[in-house]
Amino acid sequence: MNRYESLVRGLLEQAGITVGGSEPQDLQVHDQRFYERVVAEGSLGLGESYMDGWWSCAQLDEFFCRLLQTRLDSKVKLPWRETLAAAVARVLNRQSSRRAGQVAHVHYDLGAEFFEAIMDPRMVYSCGYWKNATTLAQAQEDKLDLACRKIGLAPSDRVLDIGCGWGGFVTFAHERYGCAPLGVTISRPQAEYARRRCAGTPIQILAADYREINRREHGSFDKVVSFGMFEHVGPKNHRAFMKVVDDVLTEGGLFLLHTVGENVTRPKGDPWLDKHIFPNVAIPSVQHIGRAVEGLFVVEDWHNFGPDYYTTLMSWYENLQKHYPSLSPGAVPEPRERFYRMWEYFYASCASAFKTRRLQLWQIVMSKGTIPAYTSVR
Amino acid sequence: MNRYESLVRGLLEQAGITVGGSEPQDLQVHDQRFYERVVAEGSLGLGESYMDGWWSCAQLDEFFCRLLQTRLDSKVKLPWRETLAAAVARVLNRQSSRRAGQVAHVHYDLGAEFFEAIMDPRMVYSCGYWKNATTLAQAQEDKLDLACRKIGLAPSDRVLDIGCGWGGFVTFAHERYGCAPLGVTISRPQAEYARRRCAGTPIQILAADYREINRREHGSFDKVVSFGMFEHVGPKNHRAFMKVVDDVLTEGGLFLLHTVGENVTRPKGDPWLDKHIFPNVAIPSVQHIGRAVEGLFVVEDWHNFGPDYYTTLMSWYENLQKHYPSLSPGAVPEPRERFYRMWEYFYASCASAFKTRRLQLWQIVMSKGTIPAYTSVR
Repeated sequence: MNRYESLVRGLLEQAGITVGGSEPQDLQVHDQRFYERVVAEGSLGLGESYMDGWWSCAQLDEFFCRLLQTRLDSKVKLPWRETLAAAVARVLNRQSSRRAGQVAHVHYDLGAEFFEAIMDPRMVYSCGYWKNATTLAQAQEDKLDLACRKIGLAPSDRVLDIGCGWGGFVTFAHERYGCAPLGVTISRPQAEYARRRCAGTPIQILAADYREINRREHGSFDKVVSFGMFEHVGPKNHRAFMKVVDDVLTEGGLFLLHTVGENVTRPKGDPWLDKHIFPNVAIPSVQHIGRAVEGLFVVEDWHNFGPDYYTTLMSWYENLQKHYPSLSPGAVPEPRERFYRMWEYFYASCASAFKTRRLQLWQIVMSKGTIPAYTSVR
Repeated sequence: MNRYESLVRGLLEQAGITVGGSEPQDLQVHDQRFYERVVAEGSLGLGESYMDGWWSCAQLDEFFCRLLQTRLDSKVKLPWRETLAAAVARVLNRQSSRRAGQVAHVHYDLGAEFFEAIMDPRMVYSCGYWKNATTLAQAQEDKLDLACRKIGLAPSDRVLDIGCGWGGFVTFAHERYGCAPLGVTISRPQAEYARRRCAGTPIQILAADYREINRREHGSFDKVVSFGMFEHVGPKNHRAFMKVVDDVLTEGGLFLLHTVGENVTRPKGDPWLDKHIFPNVAIPSVQHIGRAVEGLFVVEDWHNFGPDYYTTLMSWYENLQKHYPSLSPGAVPEPRERFYRMWEYFYASCASAFKTRRLQLWQIVMSKGTIPAYTSVR
């Protein structure tokens, strides 16, 4: 056993994880280079060596829960904590308009067949609301309905959805509440998909960056919603995002922000996630939100249902395991197996971050402070 | 008409207020020195000249609503905005332990007879919950019960109330939920009053600064609450306050913070309020809270019912008008009339700040991030 192996084994043992053990969280190493790669590259090396098949685990989410519960990531003073990269991120605005397309290109432009296999029938790619739901489809409907009830959606409302994805919210708001929303996404394939879905309805879909939305061109809106998109905006642009919403929202209007939240303020996200799943992702903190909305919005209600994202992500993970083998040849890039393992790693590691309460899911309702009162609903 | 009079009249007209007019919000000037004093001293001069009887108004809260709705305070570049004082406050920690007694001495040490005349039977001196209430007494009971339900209070819970006042919450939690809380207040007269009220119960009352509370001496608590006290803590000490709560809260515990909140981050409060009602008051913003709890607590729920403080303050205002004349001679300081007008001014101006949505009322539930999930209630 070389010094890398003994170091890694020792750390994992602190978290109750045994290399070669038979518990669900235990790790099987298939390539001895694993140890050195993890020590040298930290989080990135752990993820990429998984993609390369150098190690496996019977229950990957449980493996991550153990790591996070032991707070191994904050104990280890290795490249694991990307101090330099964080400092660089503060200087360099990683989510400029030019770069905003990166996340769409890498992630959301992937063919719809893959996401259809993983998601609910409405194709809603954000946390579901599991309070009264037992299936993913129901949890997503309940989440959309919760949002509609929170903003008191009425048929006559002009509604804007920033980051509309494949049109999950806009079609729901149309079918159930009689609205004709405008949905905006930066991903052209998503916009085309949503447009096909909305054919014959008064729903409008725009392929644009959120910074292109303004009152002069697009008019004002009584209700603005945004689901799972603020995570891609980045701290340097949080204020610009809020100013866009402020510009288009009517005086008596309501804005619902649905976003993942983090317990501490960080300038950037996990390096593995950044490289393979969400380039330039930056999860906001309470401080970030406070700074971004100051003087523009009154926070009327702040609802945290983070643990529901564990259930949502585990549902996607199960669907991945179930449906991946039957995807058509061109549906995903080659090598197929490595791509599969990347998504496994993503869903399981994120799920565990919500289960261990490292990450939160916030629905925040805001007004311009010109409504007499707001009554929060659950 | 001198230049001060024309300046003040012009500003008031922008807000729809006429000097000598007959609308409820109109202002009657009884001393011509009023105009110069307001120009020279801003907010402080406006308040003190009211106390001195230099002007009056049929409906004082409506007068303030008009001022705030017109945003006159941000338009006028006079001493009204205490820029220098704000800068000084940032440097000087206004809420040091030595100074913390000031607010208690000036405000809460006032004889109980005065507050008994103004408040509900339980003597709860914070915002009521008016969702289903029609009287002040009911609104305060509903607020206390809402807080207890939010933290899932159980008879076996060890409960700490930081800033317990005259014992409103601790007695409620004992009667309705079978708990034996520890209440802490910095005001000796409040502590003595609460102790008399709790005689024969297992409730404990401690006269101490919140910084004196610690796990070693006082043990750990399953639930910690604080109502209307964080406003006196001050931004420089927000973190110290949270660390005290973190120290004594159990791993699976819940902390409910009930505080007034402001839409923007300011280092200090209004100069009139600071001088006459709450020395060193500093209303927190979302940013303040975010910064103070970072890495210590997970924000589980953030409930804003600010407009309910308008109704609460107007109830106190009505009680003041109704019961002040019959207070016993020694109940309030001389001159009686000036003291009365000070409270009128306080309740009416604060009420209007909540009605116009300048101020918010937050109930925030927090955990240590070690509970599997939290279900918010309303």
